[in-house]
Amino acid sequence: MSGHVAIVGATGAVGQEFIRVLEQRNFPYKRITFLASARSAGKKLTFRGTDHTIQELTKDSFAGVDLALFSAGGSISREFGPLAAKAGAVVVDNSSAFRMDPDTPLVVPEVNPEDVKAHKGIIANPNCSTIIMVVPVFALHKVNPVRRMVVSTYQAASGAGYQAMVELEQQSRDVLAGKPVTPKVLPHQIAFNLFNHNSKVGDNGYNEEEMKMVKETRKMFHNDAIQITATCVRVPVMRAHSEAINLTFEKPITENEVRKILSAAPGVKVVDDRVKNYFPMPLDSSDGDDILVGRIRQDISQPDGRGIELFVSGDQLRKGAALNAVQIAELLV
Amino acid sequence: MSGHVAIVGATGAVGQEFIRVLEQRNFPYKRITFLASARSAGKKLTFRGTDHTIQELTKDSFAGVDLALFSAGGSISREFGPLAAKAGAVVVDNSSAFRMDPDTPLVVPEVNPEDVKAHKGIIANPNCSTIIMVVPVFALHKVNPVRRMVVSTYQAASGAGYQAMVELEQQSRDVLAGKPVTPKVLPHQIAFNLFNHNSKVGDNGYNEEEMKMVKETRKMFHNDAIQITATCVRVPVMRAHSEAINLTFEKPITENEVRKILSAAPGVKVVDDRVKNYFPMPLDSSDGDDILVGRIRQDISQPDGRGIELFVSGDQLRKGAALNAVQIAELLV
Repeated sequence: MSGHVAIVGATGAVGQEFIRVLEQRNFPYKRITFLASARSAGKKLTFRGTDHTIQELTKDSFAGVDLALFSAGGSISREFGPLAAKAGAVVVDNSSAFRMDPDTPLVVPEVNPEDVKAHKGIIANPNCSTIIMVVPVFALHKVNPVRRMVVSTYQAASGAGYQAMVELEQQSRDVLAGKPVTPKVLPHQIAFNLFNHNSKVGDNGYNEEEMKMVKETRKMFHNDAIQITATCVRVPVMRAHSEAINLTFEKPITENEVRKILSAAPGVKVVDDRVKNYFPMPLDSSDGDDILVGRIRQDISQPDGRGIELFVSGDQLRKGAALNAVQIAELLV
Repeated sequence: MSGHVAIVGATGAVGQEFIRVLEQRNFPYKRITFLASARSAGKKLTFRGTDHTIQELTKDSFAGVDLALFSAGGSISREFGPLAAKAGAVVVDNSSAFRMDPDTPLVVPEVNPEDVKAHKGIIANPNCSTIIMVVPVFALHKVNPVRRMVVSTYQAASGAGYQAMVELEQQSRDVLAGKPVTPKVLPHQIAFNLFNHNSKVGDNGYNEEEMKMVKETRKMFHNDAIQITATCVRVPVMRAHSEAINLTFEKPITENEVRKILSAAPGVKVVDDRVKNYFPMPLDSSDGDDILVGRIRQDISQPDGRGIELFVSGDQLRKGAALNAVQIAELLV
């Protein structure tokens, strides 16, 4: 299946991470093609020690392609995803274009790997903050169903793309030099500041990022009854998202049970040292594959013993995007 | 009463803010004395255009002092606070030393101003993250009692003192220059990172900052039934704390009622523009007196209509410390 692999959006922050993840995991392929906009076409990329020329993405790009990894934004996915599928490729799409389409499986391999089978040419990769949350939460949900989640996020610049990372760095230099700051990529100053996630705020007051966390989790858990509320915040961190997660379970659960379940959960690493005050941090989760989970404690505000608090951190570009997409592709191989 | 005012810890981050707040509010006094450790004694301070020499804090410093504003840490407060009270001063103490003492009122003027009357020489100023939370929440609680709160904080470096602010700045420069970072004041790298609050983590897994938010709120609300859970996180922001607050009320409440109550609440400014995606940010709350409140929305995870989400931001050094203490002193005048 993975004979001829195409990477769409090869020059973006996630596209670059696709390349690293495919190299590191020794992903099996016969041929690889890097596709991007006309602006990037003709430039060279090195993959496993070999130079590749970036091709311009056109409607004819997918002839003979078996697997297409898309990360070039929703409009590119909407235009070219169905064309790639029609040409016979299986598309793993990192945009939000098809996530809530009933015909498109939305998959995190640690949560619902069996859903890939139902694909009709396109499989959607969830939103980064959703992935980072559901990997540890689903491990618990399988044992004792989660009834309600209250989540607050601490989201990195990378979630808004490579240029947002550049902006965080440049603004930080400017602030430290006493120079004025003019936001260009993100709507507000990100250096030494934080603000509501830069997605559109809907009529119910939730931003799109928050509603993704609600809807995508319900779809992957095959459970529309789970109650979720989220507050998504952009913070001056480069590439790892963190989240404070308050859980209410169906039945009482102890923090020791939670620690035991999470210690055995795939894709999760428990980092929970109360004596050393060492817990998940973006500095440690960045560039790694695991979702770090700590601050595991019984929620003292739920005296019936059904509440648990967690704090998690995961690399937005890896498990939040490229790694999860490649893991989906590995399920297909 | 406020004839002779003494500032204890005049050279610290909060001490410096005491000076600015007293100047800006034209606080009435006849004489003012600045006290600090032997290390700072002899140095000069300018207050309302006049130079003052910093005196060394000793057990004899409080003769004739009417009002003593303490912000020099818990051990200094424990040693010198009772001495100052015994010498006839009213102490407004910014440390945690006396906050939970049943004989010491713990006061936020917007919440429980009447409690100052019961003082026996010492009045405690609450923890910064507690103050910033209770100003807007109490305005709602008065109308419809709050049953449960789930809070996640985004706390600035200033809460760990002036040297932590210097560390954030220096580390940011070092990271941008590609130099290695060695944390000294805070336990982990703060530049482009975030981590669990730097207070001790107790046997229940909550850090001391989180337990302060629980216990101090109950004390000021005169309500031990209110259920509170908090996750306190240090973020790379200079001097304003932000908090995501999820509330469950006794009775259903609408976001419009909440907006109306908060718009009329003292010490609160509603910043809640969904169209412009403009909500409370540390950049805007820094150096201001108001607690900015926004992201006001019905909590979709509580279909019975009893849930509200808020996001707040307030200056840690002003309302979180010096301003609130001066406002307590103003209640006494």
